[in-house]
Amino acid sequence: MSDHSGKPIIAITMGDPCGVGPEIIVKALGSSLVKQCCIPFVIGDLAAMERAVTVCNLSLSLQVITSVKQVRAVPSGTVALLELSTLGTNDMIYGKPTDASGDAAYRYICTAAGFCLDGSAAAMVTAPISKEALNRAGHIYPGHTELLAELCGSEDYVMMLAGDRLRVSLVTIHTALRDVSEKVTFEQVLKTIRITEAGLRRITGISRPKIAVAALNPHCGEGGMFGNQDQLIVEPAVEAASLEGIDAVGPLSADTLFYFAQQGQYDGVVAMYHDQGLVPLKMLHFDDAVNVTLGLPIIRTSVDHGTAYNLAGTGKASENSMLAAIRMAASMCRK
Amino acid sequence: MSDHSGKPIIAITMGDPCGVGPEIIVKALGSSLVKQCCIPFVIGDLAAMERAVTVCNLSLSLQVITSVKQVRAVPSGTVALLELSTLGTNDMIYGKPTDASGDAAYRYICTAAGFCLDGSAAAMVTAPISKEALNRAGHIYPGHTELLAELCGSEDYVMMLAGDRLRVSLVTIHTALRDVSEKVTFEQVLKTIRITEAGLRRITGISRPKIAVAALNPHCGEGGMFGNQDQLIVEPAVEAASLEGIDAVGPLSADTLFYFAQQGQYDGVVAMYHDQGLVPLKMLHFDDAVNVTLGLPIIRTSVDHGTAYNLAGTGKASENSMLAAIRMAASMCRK
Repeated sequence: MSDHSGKPIIAITMGDPCGVGPEIIVKALGSSLVKQCCIPFVIGDLAAMERAVTVCNLSLSLQVITSVKQVRAVPSGTVALLELSTLGTNDMIYGKPTDASGDAAYRYICTAAGFCLDGSAAAMVTAPISKEALNRAGHIYPGHTELLAELCGSEDYVMMLAGDRLRVSLVTIHTALRDVSEKVTFEQVLKTIRITEAGLRRITGISRPKIAVAALNPHCGEGGMFGNQDQLIVEPAVEAASLEGIDAVGPLSADTLFYFAQQGQYDGVVAMYHDQGLVPLKMLHFDDAVNVTLGLPIIRTSVDHGTAYNLAGTGKASENSMLAAIRMAASMCRK
Repeated sequence: MSDHSGKPIIAITMGDPCGVGPEIIVKALGSSLVKQCCIPFVIGDLAAMERAVTVCNLSLSLQVITSVKQVRAVPSGTVALLELSTLGTNDMIYGKPTDASGDAAYRYICTAAGFCLDGSAAAMVTAPISKEALNRAGHIYPGHTELLAELCGSEDYVMMLAGDRLRVSLVTIHTALRDVSEKVTFEQVLKTIRITEAGLRRITGISRPKIAVAALNPHCGEGGMFGNQDQLIVEPAVEAASLEGIDAVGPLSADTLFYFAQQGQYDGVVAMYHDQGLVPLKMLHFDDAVNVTLGLPIIRTSVDHGTAYNLAGTGKASENSMLAAIRMAASMCRK
């Protein structure tokens, strides 16, 4: 949904009140870049948001709304807040998430996803949560991505982290290294390539993006000496994608692939597991990458960092990733 | 062993005659930086070396020696060559290694290691080999490092790749991803930290180098949600190293560790497996890192790249890594 100006309405979840989420949100919402591209509103907690404004020494005003329909009526320069929790001070101690704060963070996400699914919002952007607190509150998910997939009833989702110089999507995400190999199947690799291609088209506007697919094993297994999954699984999946018209190459040995990827040789990279893809991504985009969930029926982006408890309450956390996440979500709404 | 000037004698193995090895050697040996720090000699094949001089358009002369004792008598500016093979043209086609060329490359390495073990040479530096050709010739090793460990009768070896901005050593090297987890044991991690510390002291001259140890699982397993090896294995190994007086921290989530490592926060990083460590290393040091085998009774460095068949015969391969490998070996001889 967008207003008469064509700007999309974007729901921003506040995340863990004990982390840097509220601070990076208020800092980002003060930017004219956000006002230009969308109509944002926050789903969260008034006390936590007010504290963030104070901590960041901003003059931003907050206005509580009780329905998403009121978002448009909030004047530009004022932050609309749908209040879903009224946490006490004990549930807002920096670095000390509680069951209550974990449960609240969970509800922000569920509500935002609901708005996206029913069309009340065009996209959602999420601030970091404490997975431990979520778990303690009885919501057992390895991360945002898996929770959102469940809320959307979608099994075909892909996590991509995107910066200006590198975009990486993952075949497996929050998986113990021991379990990665067996989860890298022909179907999973092919599905990830397909969803990555569709996502890259939407993110970059490139009609036929060039995708590099990393090998599972070092040196692609060196001709079978250490692992044959690259020949038996990854290579056939890349070939199948190519037959569908996707411009994919691989499997390529990861240690050389990312060197060339950072030079701009590919529009995106499909990595087989978390550290393989996110180590290089974070070296280039530590605080300005966007986490985007592809393959869902909704548009969802996120910051690519955690709750950063060491910075919470200082006002020093960089809003760059939040700003980039909001702008990417808005851009994807238009495409 | 070193001559009266104090310069160490360094054996350089020619590697695969069908790759860029001979070219990067002659380019590096033309540099005054090499002449200043050591007395080098090549173990290889005259025809391959002569071709490299031609291809690179250099005016370097070669002088065949029949014993390592003759190295000192070779005038500066002339390259001493101990000829261990006389390959025909069919065994020197660029990009097409044969059983004979694989066997020759194997013998260069064995001979150089022997010179280091008996004191005829102070160190050895290796040019890239074709592992496939080595295997076809009946010498089954995943790489140089494992072959050298066997030649030295050493089980306690560690592969480190070192550049100016990042030095990484590996707990597991040429291992299928499927097998990494079970090979990451308390003993193996502790041993790698110990050998890495000793190596860093020798390489950097820093008396108590600061070492970061990467987690095996993403986010250190997020409190056990995806893997508990970081708590059960890596953390105790880091603690044991600390109790021995080693300045080690970890396990640290790899995706943030390497961001801080590239900024110089650590003197070295211990990574659990190949791609975890070498993806970031090669992003920073694609053509100027040195591969150094730590823990052996001999000093051995190497280029950090392969045979680069696409460049072989063009004279265009960069000699930076070879130059850095020779200089590091010479520097380690002095410490």
